Amino acid sequence: MTQIFDNPADFADEALDGFVAANRGYVARVDGGVVRSTEVPAGQVALVVGGGSGHYPAFAGLVGPGLAAGSACGNMFASPAAGQVYRVAKASNAGGGVLLSYGNYAGDVLHFGQAQLRLNAEGIETRTVLVTDDIASAPLDQIEKRRGIAGDLTVFKIAGAAAEAGLDLDAVERLAIRTNYRTRSLGVAFDGCTLPGADAPLFHVPEGQMSLGLGIHGEPGISEHPMPTASELADLLVSKLLADKPDDAGNRVVAIVNGLGTVKYDELFLLFGKIEKLLSAAGLTVVEPECGELVTSLDMSGLSLTLLWLDEELEELWAAPADTPAFRKGNLAPRARRELAGPEDAVAGEVEDTTPAAADLGRLAAAVLAQIQDVVIEHEDELGNLDAIAGDGDHGIGMRRGIDAAAAAGRDVSAAGLSVQRVLTAAGEAWSERAGGTSGALWGSAVIAAGLALGNKDAYRGADAAAAVTAFVDAITALGKAEPGDKTMVDALLPFKDTFLAAFDGGAQVAVALASAATAAREAADATASLRPLKGRARPLAEKSVGHPDPGAVSFGLIAARVSAYIDTALNDTPLNDSRLAASVAGNGAEA
Amino acid sequence: MTQIFDNPADFADEALDGFVAANRGYVARVDGGVVRSTEVPAGQVALVVGGGSGHYPAFAGLVGPGLAAGSACGNMFASPAAGQVYRVAKASNAGGGVLLSYGNYAGDVLHFGQAQLRLNAEGIETRTVLVTDDIASAPLDQIEKRRGIAGDLTVFKIAGAAAEAGLDLDAVERLAIRTNYRTRSLGVAFDGCTLPGADAPLFHVPEGQMSLGLGIHGEPGISEHPMPTASELADLLVSKLLADKPDDAGNRVVAIVNGLGTVKYDELFLLFGKIEKLLSAAGLTVVEPECGELVTSLDMSGLSLTLLWLDEELEELWAAPADTPAFRKGNLAPRARRELAGPEDAVAGEVEDTTPAAADLGRLAAAVLAQIQDVVIEHEDELGNLDAIAGDGDHGIGMRRGIDAAAAAGRDVSAAGLSVQRVLTAAGEAWSERAGGTSGALWGSAVIAAGLALGNKDAYRGADAAAAVTAFVDAITALGKAEPGDKTMVDALLPFKDTFLAAFDGGAQVAVALASAATAAREAADATASLRPLKGRARPLAEKSVGHPDPGAVSFGLIAARVSAYIDTALNDTPLNDSRLAASVAGNGAEA
Repeated sequence: MTQIFDNPADFADEALDGFVAANRGYVARVDGGVVRSTEVPAGQVALVVGGGSGHYPAFAGLVGPGLAAGSACGNMFASPAAGQVYRVAKASNAGGGVLLSYGNYAGDVLHFGQAQLRLNAEGIETRTVLVTDDIASAPLDQIEKRRGIAGDLTVFKIAGAAAEAGLDLDAVERLAIRTNYRTRSLGVAFDGCTLPGADAPLFHVPEGQMSLGLGIHGEPGISEHPMPTASELADLLVSKLLADKPDDAGNRVVAIVNGLGTVKYDELFLLFGKIEKLLSAAGLTVVEPECGELVTSLDMSGLSLTLLWLDEELEELWAAPADTPAFRKGNLAPRARRELAGPEDAVAGEVEDTTPAAADLGRLAAAVLAQIQDVVIEHEDELGNLDAIAGDGDHGIGMRRGIDAAAAAGRDVSAAGLSVQRVLTAAGEAWSERAGGTSGALWGSAVIAAGLALGNKDAYRGADAAAAVTAFVDAITALGKAEPGDKTMVDALLPFKDTFLAAFDGGAQVAVALASAATAAREAADATASLRPLKGRARPLAEKSVGHPDPGAVSFGLIAARVSAYIDTALNDTPLNDSRLAASVAGNGAEA
Repeated sequence: MTQIFDNPADFADEALDGFVAANRGYVARVDGGVVRSTEVPAGQVALVVGGGSGHYPAFAGLVGPGLAAGSACGNMFASPAAGQVYRVAKASNAGGGVLLSYGNYAGDVLHFGQAQLRLNAEGIETRTVLVTDDIASAPLDQIEKRRGIAGDLTVFKIAGAAAEAGLDLDAVERLAIRTNYRTRSLGVAFDGCTLPGADAPLFHVPEGQMSLGLGIHGEPGISEHPMPTASELADLLVSKLLADKPDDAGNRVVAIVNGLGTVKYDELFLLFGKIEKLLSAAGLTVVEPECGELVTSLDMSGLSLTLLWLDEELEELWAAPADTPAFRKGNLAPRARRELAGPEDAVAGEVEDTTPAAADLGRLAAAVLAQIQDVVIEHEDELGNLDAIAGDGDHGIGMRRGIDAAAAAGRDVSAAGLSVQRVLTAAGEAWSERAGGTSGALWGSAVIAAGLALGNKDAYRGADAAAAVTAFVDAITALGKAEPGDKTMVDALLPFKDTFLAAFDGGAQVAVALASAATAAREAADATASLRPLKGRARPLAEKSVGHPDPGAVSFGLIAARVSAYIDTALNDTPLNDSRLAASVAGNGAEA
């Protein structure tokens, strides 16, 4: 169990600080994670990895020449927030674009995806390669649904070596995809790990049993087995991986035996020895293997075997040198240290020459956020109760945490007189970082997208409002990947957007279009009561959910109604209602 | 708990095989451990480390350029046998002599010491530097009694770098001694580890408690404390180490936070961050720190802090490059692979041109070993019962295991017609490897020493018998370090030697001198009944021991009497009694 901490809530942050203190020759702290502390050749592709903390040396331990340029580091076993990924990627970028690579987990996909949207919107070309090596998590014909475990290392290593070799973003992405496609892993667990401050492990495997395919956080396995001998375990892992090999597998493989925390070195070596014999007997040549703790889960008792099926290009890149805190191979010429701004300044953002119109709209945006905060507080318990019927009951508290942070950030930034873009990006970042979970990421991303759509312009038209509504909704559908009818907030969002655009395109003023859209959203939210959940929070208890509306759709409907009512009032009797702003919000196509 | 194995008895061996399979670029297997698989510059001092298995990366993980030349690898938490150390050292020697370095534990001291005697006797100059960094194990004024824990790493690293820099054995030894003197460690434990196949940990620390100063195998600590916060723990470790700093400490230190197995990386980093702040606040500069798992104890829950107080020379050597499976630093030019004979051939030993006299004496030696086996079997239960009064009761079974192996080895080697030297060195190696424990190591070493004294000569005189008796006894007193009156076998050995030499020097024939000596030994053994044990097996239960003789002294007395009687008979009526042999054993100074 995890024992060394002061306040469990500060664990991940303090651990990261200590990691940097112990490895100053390699890494420097930035807001959201770490980047290399040594010079990166200009134009080199920046591989940015990351995920929850607690998996050391994944991910921060793999930052250095020949491997990652930076790592976004979330809380314990929790995805970094989009803003963290964004800031780490921005500090890592050396002008060659960014490859985001991480294990395929919903939270990470959301937050890294949100960061990617923002990086691309700002002109930093960014791609993503998900690691999907765990053969236990989905069948081969659904390889894209597999989660990532120790195969992180092969994908990162090859991509990092390709970047180091000076290849461009297209080539690095292509090699990372190929490596992921040719990487297979399978893990076993004997017992779970205990998070800092928790009084029990995340899960248990029954005494004397082994769970095959159990995920690194306790995700369900394929099957339970009596504790095997080492020879039986080697045979099981090798035979399952060989049965799943890629079509164009050759006969040269990298083999990685990875300990998850408390299966120790001698045990891993003993197992590796048996595995290597089996692979040789199968006609394979094992190339530059690894055996140790490479992707861990705190003090989890378990291990995994990874095979990377090499081709000539991948073998050369696997063998290339790398020099990071936890993974060192071959010889790389030492790099000079680079000067990095402190965490607070690392991505300070360009100085903005705020326009009066954008500052006014920023104040309105902050006022709207305060309204959203009010309506969430009013309905916090109700949303929690609704979510508890078929979910984990945290929707009320999650929305509350998110909007509290977003409203405070919006208030501060608007008080400083900055643009609506700055107000909403700060609010969105705060929302997703503090709320946690899927709905926090979606709301944060949507608010940021609306802010980027509004920008810092000399004047605003009604078309800008339509663009903001579209950006808001599209961010959620792009990231959340839910379809209409899945019983998620998307079931309220799409009618909202469609109604707004239809009314606006039909000549309605923004406030009027908004009112219609809000009504449509509330009705659609109520109508989700009849749906069976196919995705999202309520899926695990689908039957219980029928007859009750989706909490995410309901909260969106409530918020849409409140915002619509407020905008309508604001345009009539608040000090914000000057002509430019009124035109920008109420107008339809007319220059303000 | 240790989970991955086939047969627990094979665990250490199979783990070492797998380690080598995973690290062929670094290490090759030899009988008794591993050596570098890459070329070692001729004349370079060979640093040979080692100890029990289960402490990875100590010790085998530290073999490579810039660090160790070889590692002798014992069973789980058990010293390698002297023969293993000897063979690894011999395979490691590149002509520059050997520095043996290892943690200060009784078993290791015995077995490495025995190997050192043999290496020096064979002309390979060999020195020893014990690691004594654990401040909890003895006060500062008895620093030589302290045991070694994670300070192994600093001593090995500096010595390895000095060897790599081409310094000679004197200089490497001097630097290792200085590093050890300037290294201080203190550890804590939260729970014990479980050996392969065992159903319970070696020890337990009560729930919610922390044991300060607990050794890495469960040796008693200084004190128990309620589980502290990380900040409190950092403060405790730092303040205790600073209070124990060497006289000539400067203000630059290497700090090493070492995890023992299940205190994981994030926890270690978190603690390191706090420790570094405290050291800085104390005016110290932390230089190239380490934070990770460097000297472990399987799945033990615990950690330690080590400080090495640098001077200019040590700082340069600490920062020098090293390239081993588990410790890599800086850049070293790649080394070519070298061809090594397989384990069975690695130290095949020179072909011996056995003299007829030495072959005859070899047959007598084998017959004597068979006699010793008889007398041990006769008294096995009695010796066990005597040992059980104030010890662990294993003296009978330990002697039996040792002499069974020794007699078999002696029989085989003498049947092949080899010299008395070969017969006795093989028998002594077998004895110490199979018997285990202190008395096995002492007996094995003494038998080997007698064999080396007798050699492979053209003829033997009575003086050779006297030399063999002297070598036998001196090996035990040199290795066991017991004083007369400590209530150990030394209390029977010294009267035996003194009586023999007095009689022989007075002109008595060997058989006669031997008879007197054996009588003296039996009387002295009986007389140990009145002693209070100060060292050795009976010390923990000293009171119970009074009134009973020491089992080790008794077994030696019984064996001396039987050997004396047999030699007397052999010279009169066995086929061995030809003129050359009779002269060699019975004569006094006359050329055979």
